[in-house]
Amino acid sequence: MSETEPGVLARVRLGHEERVVALLRERGALSRAELGTLSALSRSTLSDIVGALLARGAVVVTTPESAGRKRPPGRPAELLTLNPHSGQTLGLDFGHRRVHVAVANAAQEVIGTAALGYARSTSWQRRLEIACGLVDSLRTGLGPLNGVGVGVTGPVGPAPERSKHVTALVDAIGERFGVPVSVDNNTRLAALAEMLRGAGKGFSDVVYTRLSDGVGGGIVVGGRLLRGARGSAGEIGHVPVEPAGRPCPCGGRGCLETVASVPAVVAASGADDLPSALQALEEGAPDAVAAFDRAGRALGFALASVCNTVNPARIVVGGEVAVPRVLAAAEAALAAHLPPAQRLPAHPAALGDEVGALGALALVAHDSPLLIGYPGGQGRGEDES
Amino acid sequence: MSETEPGVLARVRLGHEERVVALLRERGALSRAELGTLSALSRSTLSDIVGALLARGAVVVTTPESAGRKRPPGRPAELLTLNPHSGQTLGLDFGHRRVHVAVANAAQEVIGTAALGYARSTSWQRRLEIACGLVDSLRTGLGPLNGVGVGVTGPVGPAPERSKHVTALVDAIGERFGVPVSVDNNTRLAALAEMLRGAGKGFSDVVYTRLSDGVGGGIVVGGRLLRGARGSAGEIGHVPVEPAGRPCPCGGRGCLETVASVPAVVAASGADDLPSALQALEEGAPDAVAAFDRAGRALGFALASVCNTVNPARIVVGGEVAVPRVLAAAEAALAAHLPPAQRLPAHPAALGDEVGALGALALVAHDSPLLIGYPGGQGRGEDES
Repeated sequence: MSETEPGVLARVRLGHEERVVALLRERGALSRAELGTLSALSRSTLSDIVGALLARGAVVVTTPESAGRKRPPGRPAELLTLNPHSGQTLGLDFGHRRVHVAVANAAQEVIGTAALGYARSTSWQRRLEIACGLVDSLRTGLGPLNGVGVGVTGPVGPAPERSKHVTALVDAIGERFGVPVSVDNNTRLAALAEMLRGAGKGFSDVVYTRLSDGVGGGIVVGGRLLRGARGSAGEIGHVPVEPAGRPCPCGGRGCLETVASVPAVVAASGADDLPSALQALEEGAPDAVAAFDRAGRALGFALASVCNTVNPARIVVGGEVAVPRVLAAAEAALAAHLPPAQRLPAHPAALGDEVGALGALALVAHDSPLLIGYPGGQGRGEDES
Repeated sequence: MSETEPGVLARVRLGHEERVVALLRERGALSRAELGTLSALSRSTLSDIVGALLARGAVVVTTPESAGRKRPPGRPAELLTLNPHSGQTLGLDFGHRRVHVAVANAAQEVIGTAALGYARSTSWQRRLEIACGLVDSLRTGLGPLNGVGVGVTGPVGPAPERSKHVTALVDAIGERFGVPVSVDNNTRLAALAEMLRGAGKGFSDVVYTRLSDGVGGGIVVGGRLLRGARGSAGEIGHVPVEPAGRPCPCGGRGCLETVASVPAVVAASGADDLPSALQALEEGAPDAVAAFDRAGRALGFALASVCNTVNPARIVVGGEVAVPRVLAAAEAALAAHLPPAQRLPAHPAALGDEVGALGALALVAHDSPLLIGYPGGQGRGEDES
């Protein structure tokens, strides 16, 4: 029985190493201090693990500049990343009218992005051809591919419950690239991207919502996307905000979307489109002011529900309706409905139209944090450390 | 570089074994089919792992009867559990007026329970002495202790933010028993127990709420408690249900607790206490009917928010206010505010007053799923397989 003790210890040690590699895969470049906080490992354990990973060439040292960060004045500039040569990931975001594509190396640095529009009636086959053309233009001879993340509109449940076109798209992408493919709703992927690279950077518990043609959302808990039993967690647009409110196309009633989407604020403003509604708000037209304030109050009420349910550290709001007046009204409603210790500001989203593709990139590491990312098998070893 | 491939494979294999052991630690006795579903491992992988665990004596075969289940007629009766002799766990639930104690073996079979009341003013030192007396009466010479789970009233945040009395209690219990101690809010622990042993059994995504002197709750996502950035996830009692509702002691306004707690329904019924309010409801007194219906509608509205946020597979409602009329009104409101595919019934809770202590027991495995439970180190090996 004396072999059992070292066996258990070795098992624990591997778990720690996996945790460090998973964090670097998921978050990109991190300082030793950030790694220590996120991994909750002791300084000496972390130092042993990082030393072994550096010696194997699995991890390399980089500088804040090359990782796209400002160099803090007077502080040592060392960041750790996975070896960027150990493979690339691809993110594809299929919107209703446009596909966005992004490519990153294993250090989670974005190498390139591209986008191209199509008609809403475009077939999935054709959308995929367009995406592959963009990918080819970005990936000219740039090494092995580790995985592809895909964003789509509409709900994405567990594999057996997915719609046929999502399953067919995932299968076609897997055949085309010969690597694992992960898929999720693109608003949920936007939440992941805002957590990793945008207004939620530095936080692991983030609630994201987007007020656009519809109202969608995504929730990150402990750095992981919350998906739910059937894939419909984070449907913040359908949180009820008015007990006797209007019927919603979802089949519910009084949902946030019925008062805070673009069509809802445009109609309540008495305007023809969003630019004229925003113009009317600017000019202080009472109907427009009331419409945007009502949207903001409803947003705050819904976010208070979400905060009591998942207790995030950061709230991020994106979409065309998320103008400062709406965010201010939301914060006032949040303050009215939450205990003082739980109140949070509503931060505007920081990423642009490529947010879904950036989230799709991140999905590759998110959905397989432990099984890929060890570069040793591809011929890079101690000589690079 | 050729050593790297087997290294990665061994790592993956250990992860799979850890997953099987963690499931047996967390869920108690499981059939091979249940283990297959919960672990998402292939039949052949699972068979290899279970074979190795049986050979080491870490896992044993048991029957549904000895695991407290009905034996399904005509089906093979084999269940797997961790070796029950590999250690016990202890659950202590400190309520405002009573402590509940439960002891389980490593196979998650409850060996004994006990409870004793105290005055609300009783000091923490004295409460702990009372609990230890009950523990001594249950654990006469019954082998090693693996850990203690503790339930307390009020919020329990991450360790640095805990109240002094919670920290002192955890430290005192750790000193007394010399094993790791986990602590959480006892309503959240009730959610864990209902998921594992009660009305949520068989589900991994469960929303639990309790309508009692206050209204509390707990959320289980993928078999894990949702705690939130500062420990206040699952505060379903403070989900707002009325935009212009009454101020709540929490500092918010229009919270579910302001209409669905015992004091709220008693006051709105015009009664002196809950039994007379329930009697008035029974007799069809209009004020009482309106009070309970309003509580149920508010519960359904709040649960619709929670469902859109975390998308559970099962809803469980406990507490003295959760009478059939309230659950029926809640289900009607849930149906009004959710898309048809997401609608769920509100199941009454199945466990009694010991629910918090049962959840505290389960917390030991929940908070350290990978690091304990291997019995090899205690001298039980292949000879027991």
